[in-house]
Formats: sequence, C-alpha cells, structure tokens
Amino acid sequence: MVNKRIFLNAFDMNTPGHQSPGLWTHPDDESHRYKDSSYWIELAKLLERGRFDAVFIADVLGTYDVYNGSRDAAVRQGAQAPVDDPLLIVPLMSAVTNHLGFGVTSSVTHEHPYLFARRMTTLDHLTNGRVGWNIVTSYLKSAAVNMGRAGQIKHDERYDIAEEYVDVCYKLWEESWESDAVKLDKENGIYTDPNKVHDIHHEGKYYKVPGAHLSEPSKQRTPVLYQAGASPKGRAFASKHAELVFIGSPTKNAAKETVRRLREDIAKTDRSQDEVKILTMLTPIVGKTEADALEKLEDYKKHISHEGASALFGGWTGIDLSGYEEDQVIEYIENDAIRSALESFTSIDPDKKWTVGEIKDFVGIGGMSGYIAGSPEQIADQLEEWVDETGVDGFNIAYAITPGTFKDFVELVVPILQERGLVKHDYHGTSLRDNLFEQGDHLPEHHPGKQTGKELVK
Amino acid sequence: MVNKRIFLNAFDMNTPGHQSPGLWTHPDDESHRYKDSSYWIELAKLLERGRFDAVFIADVLGTYDVYNGSRDAAVRQGAQAPVDDPLLIVPLMSAVTNHLGFGVTSSVTHEHPYLFARRMTTLDHLTNGRVGWNIVTSYLKSAAVNMGRAGQIKHDERYDIAEEYVDVCYKLWEESWESDAVKLDKENGIYTDPNKVHDIHHEGKYYKVPGAHLSEPSKQRTPVLYQAGASPKGRAFASKHAELVFIGSPTKNAAKETVRRLREDIAKTDRSQDEVKILTMLTPIVGKTEADALEKLEDYKKHISHEGASALFGGWTGIDLSGYEEDQVIEYIENDAIRSALESFTSIDPDKKWTVGEIKDFVGIGGMSGYIAGSPEQIADQLEEWVDETGVDGFNIAYAITPGTFKDFVELVVPILQERGLVKHDYHGTSLRDNLFEQGDHLPEHHPGKQTGKELVK
Repeated sequence: MVNKRIFLNAFDMNTPGHQSPGLWTHPDDESHRYKDSSYWIELAKLLERGRFDAVFIADVLGTYDVYNGSRDAAVRQGAQAPVDDPLLIVPLMSAVTNHLGFGVTSSVTHEHPYLFARRMTTLDHLTNGRVGWNIVTSYLKSAAVNMGRAGQIKHDERYDIAEEYVDVCYKLWEESWESDAVKLDKENGIYTDPNKVHDIHHEGKYYKVPGAHLSEPSKQRTPVLYQAGASPKGRAFASKHAELVFIGSPTKNAAKETVRRLREDIAKTDRSQDEVKILTMLTPIVGKTEADALEKLEDYKKHISHEGASALFGGWTGIDLSGYEEDQVIEYIENDAIRSALESFTSIDPDKKWTVGEIKDFVGIGGMSGYIAGSPEQIADQLEEWVDETGVDGFNIAYAITPGTFKDFVELVVPILQERGLVKHDYHGTSLRDNLFEQGDHLPEHHPGKQTGKELVK
Repeated sequence: MVNKRIFLNAFDMNTPGHQSPGLWTHPDDESHRYKDSSYWIELAKLLERGRFDAVFIADVLGTYDVYNGSRDAAVRQGAQAPVDDPLLIVPLMSAVTNHLGFGVTSSVTHEHPYLFARRMTTLDHLTNGRVGWNIVTSYLKSAAVNMGRAGQIKHDERYDIAEEYVDVCYKLWEESWESDAVKLDKENGIYTDPNKVHDIHHEGKYYKVPGAHLSEPSKQRTPVLYQAGASPKGRAFASKHAELVFIGSPTKNAAKETVRRLREDIAKTDRSQDEVKILTMLTPIVGKTEADALEKLEDYKKHISHEGASALFGGWTGIDLSGYEEDQVIEYIENDAIRSALESFTSIDPDKKWTVGEIKDFVGIGGMSGYIAGSPEQIADQLEEWVDETGVDGFNIAYAITPGTFKDFVELVVPILQERGLVKHDYHGTSLRDNLFEQGDHLPEHHPGKQTGKELVK
C-alpha cells in the first residue's frame, strides 16, 4: 500500500492529436478545439476540481517527418501537427483557477535566455507563482533547419548549451533583483531602489548577457524545473537541476529501472531525494465498471491510426517503419536498431511475439507509455501498484480522448484516491513549488540555481 | 466638423510608468498592478464598454540609460522599468471580451520569425482574429547588448532586416497553408490534406526558412500591421506595410506635417489611402467641468517626476539632460542637437522660451505628445479639431493615471462622441481588421503580404 501522496500532472499539448494518434476521429474527442480559449479554460477548471497539481503543455517546433521520409503522415493524421505556442494558453487557464500549476515546454536551443527569462517571470507574475518550465534541448532536425541552422546540434553539445542557458536564467531570476528592491514608495517617489538591481555580467561560451533582468522578481523567482531526458547526459542534467522528472515506460519493470538509475544519479549530488519527484506517463481508460471500461477501450481502438502512430514513432525513435509489413514479427526483422528500440515492448509480456501492426496499435493509445483500463477502483489499485512497485511519485496523465479521459479520471478515480488519502482534498501551498514540496516558494538553498554568482546580491 | 468615425486605440505597456513619469505616485494610479491578471482583465472590459477599437501594448527590451549615463533614474522612477512581456497579457484580455482588438509590439531584431509567426497565429486563434502586430526595429543599445551583440545594428540595416522578416512572416501566414487544408474529416480520418500545406523555401540574407508554418491559418492570417517609424526609412516601411500608423506630436501643426508626409509616401505605392489609418497619441485629462479638469491637471502635475521624465526623454531622443540646470533656457543652450530635438516644443507657442525644467514638465504627462484637459464636451471638441486640422484618423489614448484616465474617457467622453456619430455604438466586424476597415478579415489583395511567392498556393 502506498503511504505517500500521489502527484498528479495532466499532459496536453496545443495541438489536436497528442499521444493517441487517430483518436481525434472519435465522436467524443474535442482535441481539435485546441485553438479555442474555451477548451483550455474548461480543462483548467476541471483539473483544479480534480486537485491535479499541474497541467503540463508539451511542444515541438517541427513536424515529424521520419516515417516515409515525409511529414505527410503526421499532417494527414493531425499527429502533433499543426501545433501552436504553449505559453500563450497559460494566462487563460490561470485566470480561472487559483491553485493549479502550469508546466510549459521551452527549448534552450531556439530562444535567447534574456527574452525567455522575461517571459517566464511574466507568467509567474500573472499566475501568482504557479509556473513550471520543462527544459528541453529539441530533438527534431526539422525544427533546427527552420531556425536557420544547417542541422541539429549534436546531442551532447545541446546539453552543454542547456547548462549555460539555465545558468543565465538562474542569474536573471535569482540574483539580479534583490527581494526588497521594489519599494513602491509613493511618498518619497521611489519605485525601485537602483542599488538593489544588479547586472549579471554573464560572459560564457554561448551567451553574453551583461545587464540586469528586465522584470522584477516573481513569487517563485525560478519556475519549478521539469525535465524529461532519458539519456545519460539527460539524466545527469535532470539529477542536477530538475524538481520534477517525467519518465515514460510501457511496463512497471522498465519504469522501476529508470527510477533506480535516476535516484542513483541524484544520490551523487548534494540534493536530497525529496527534492526530486518522478512522474511516469500513463493513459487511464476508466469505465463505471470493468466491462464498461473494456467496452470503451475497444471503441477507442477502432479509432487508432496506424499512419499517425508510425509518424509519432518515427519522430520519437528515428525509426522509419514504412518498409515493413503490418504482420511482420519484430523478432524476425533483420534490423538491430529496430529490435533494440522495441525491446521495451517485449517486456510487457516476454512470451509474446509482437508484429509491426501490434506495435502501432500499442502506440495508438497513450504513445510509448501505454494505457491502463478498468473500473475506478481497479484504476486506483493499479496506480497504487505502479507507485509501490516502481518508486514513482505520481503520474503524468495523458488522454485517449480529451477532455473525456480527464473528465472520467477526475469524476471517477480522484474521489477514490482522495478517500484513500493519496490525493489531497484541497490545495495548501502558496505557489506551485510550495504545493509540490511544502518548503516555500523558492528553490531550496543548495539547488544549483542558488549557487551561481551569489556575490551579486549584497 | 468631422464627418468620419474616429478610431480609438488605448495605449498601455506591461510596466508601471508608461508615458507619464512619476504619476505612479498619485494615490489613484494603479499602474503598479501591471503584474496582476486582474488589472488587464478590468482594463479590457472597460475599453470594450467604451467601444475602443483596440488596446495597444508597447514594449522595450532594455532600460533607458542615457540620462546620467545610467539606468538608475529609470529604475528609481519606475519609468518603463521593470517591464514584462506584452504578448502574455493578450489571452487574459481576449477571454473577457468579444470585439476589442490587441496590438502587441515585437521587434524584428530579437526573435526568429519562424517562432514569432507561430506566436502570432496562436494569439489570432485564441482571440478569434483580434490581433495586431506593431513592427519595431528596437532602438535601445542596452537591449542589443543583452542579446549578445556588440552593439545596436545600424538604423538603415534594421529596416533591411525588417523587410526580410515580414517577408518570412507573410509567407508563413499567407501562403504555407491553403484555406481548405484542414479537413477535420472524422469519417475518412483526414485531419489535414498534406497536399495543401506548402514549404515556403525562404532563403534570404538574414533568414533561411525552408519549411512550412507550424500552425494552421488563423482568422486574419496576417495580424493587423501597426508601425510607428518616423524616419524616412521608417515612413517608407510604414507606407508599404502598415495598416495603422502611430504618430506623436505635441502640436496639431507638427501632426499635420507628419500626416502630409505619410500620405504622400502612401500615394507613391499601389495602396489606397483608405487602407492606412493614422492615429496620434494624446493624453486626455477629463473633468466633469472645465474647472474640475484643470484642478485634476494641477493635482497630476504635482506628481510629475523630473528624474523620470529625463530618463524617458534620454531614451527617446538620445539626449542626456543631466548637464543642464532646470532654469536654463533652451534657446541659449549651445548644443544644436538639443535645440533641434526640442524644436517641436517651441511650435506649441512660438513666442515662449522653454526652460529645461519646463520641458521635463511637458514630458511628465503624456510624454512627447502632450495632453489636453477639459470638460467632456471640450475634449470631444478638441478631438474633432485634431482630426479636422491634421488629417489623423483617430487617437492613441495614453494615460496620466491608470485606469483613471481610461475610465474618465470611456464614461464621460465616449458617450458624447457616440452622440455625434463619431464613435460606433456597437462593433460590427468579424475580426480586428474587419472592425477597422470593413473589408473582411484578410489583408487587401494588393498588400505586399499578398504578393510574395504566390505560386506556392495552387
């Protein structure tokens, strides 16, 4: 039995088809409403009612074009295409909620940190301290090319850039403005004491930012830091900086191994294990009864698009499945890269021989992390099992259909989790970070964000 | 008598002290609430009630540091410092209104057009076609330096960059996605017809963008284009691209001359004069009676900050007033740059000899464009005179105190303008552009935005 609370994050994207390619064709799916303010406003209210900690908005700056060497499949199937900006929907959602947090994805390779730092401070102002940043290094070549580069920057160098990028941001957020710089002293005519605003003097390999932050400090100063890198460099970065780490695995065994490695990496740092929460992605298909859930699942399955699944799979793994027949068995495919990339599937059931078509079916609901289906009690039980057996702290809940999946979860599963003491009945914190860690609004003292250039603040 | 409607734009910025330095110290001023969602939500509702066409959010990416060679004056006086992001407040305001438009400032020298184009399309989606873009080339050296450049790009080259930047945006907005590309065909499983999404193949001097727009078309496709450049290069750019041009002059004579020059430049293009509206900045101080207004003005004047005025004046003109005594008369100052920069003031009253202190007083309310004070009828009369005598199409209304100035104007002056048939009783358009020009949501056919690479769209 789980004896700690389960963290709940909703996973969405400013696009029609996020993690369940083809399910936008389901009559109840409303993901095409992503362009309308009302979709996000309703979603935010629903999630706050369900006491979710945060909603997290993914992003890509390109279109998946590995499958068949073309973006056509992704475009035709609405598979994360078209895709709109993730930051601009946050103010909409924050205006109709009081506690829900908002994680947004922004890549360190595409926008200058001086500008980005101001955007995040602005969001933290407008949300009154409820913003998180998912630090990504961008994996799509098509994105890099459209930003004027000959190709993607090499993986390891992207993490070097990321290190310097967050360093610039930390300096702007944590050190440029002292907490009592803004006086708002109408009597003496002093808005801000200029002696308490400091240049950051950043001069690095990739960025030169001599000046001060344009914005006054926000409630959290540094937004809550999210990261999802799974490579050794990515894990090292996450262990050092991230406060929430997203993982995704089709099985508990695989998740357990990822958690073990991450926890090992964190142990090598000055940070305590409590300062990093690990959430795994999962798509819950909830029925009033088990039979109801299985019926729903069969109905959803009819809407899976193999073409859309192939497009997403190609973008995520770099593997083009277009050369293979649907009934080819993976085991017999003479391509080591594909077989090794698909090994995680075989861990679901070691005896099963997966065909290419079955892989696409799997990806069709909940992407590479799969789904669970059952009655509300069964779902609650399964979540507990995941926490017990893998060591994750909670879930990044993705949708099969939206807002249906979120609605079912909030209305049917959350009350059971609350009854079991696993989800809070009310929010208690004063900011997203305080809601998550109950240690105040700011980064903990020994976080690297607190260590850079301390001498600036007298 | 004016026989056309007067266009009304509200002028604000995501900062405490916009155009009236020091007036944040007035007990009724709430500009320090710029960080709170509620300020923008209330303002948007007020302006829509007053049938304003749009609210326009200015921006700078640096701090004014010419006066005394330091940013201290601007920081101390809250003179456009601190300053938050302008785009992120738009969704807040659009969610509580149905017709009000939103102009946002974004510089062509600091963000890549591929990313920026998506941000604007996202805003146009979320606002349902109510977004405008104020195209600026950034005049502050402190901004350039913090973006990693050795210094500011030369003025004329900035306009070359601007030309290519808008060209990239036009291609992404107007030509990449055909209007019927998105099918949302649930029955046949076609979200978008990939044959109707086109790469833009842009390869220029400053940008290479081979691919397609990430977003599907928004209602207006290209946002309404605003521009405010006053130099010959700036006017040429405005004549070619802008649909709304902002000017600012302390006197009707100066405004008349600016309008004449702009109209002359427009006449040299293929565009009709109707396609470009010219708004002049003005700060109205409205009382219930004339005496009431003058009393209000005297009260406001007590809150002017000469230090803040010097900071803004330095940023705008490049002239550092710190070496001069308050009672020095401009005429006798042996500095041609200063005397020529201040010539426009002497046009207010040719016989008056302005002292440095008086100049600061003038800048203290309504910046370089001045204010008018009077009873509601007097203000309405004066607006009509401005339109009659200068040829402007309307006003960019700035505040002395906020939201007080806007509230007075909406409650006291707008009803009179409506009675006179100069301000509409209701909105009729389907988008910001349609509200302004009554010719539909899109750019007119012979606008340069419609001319680039037409062959892409079959």
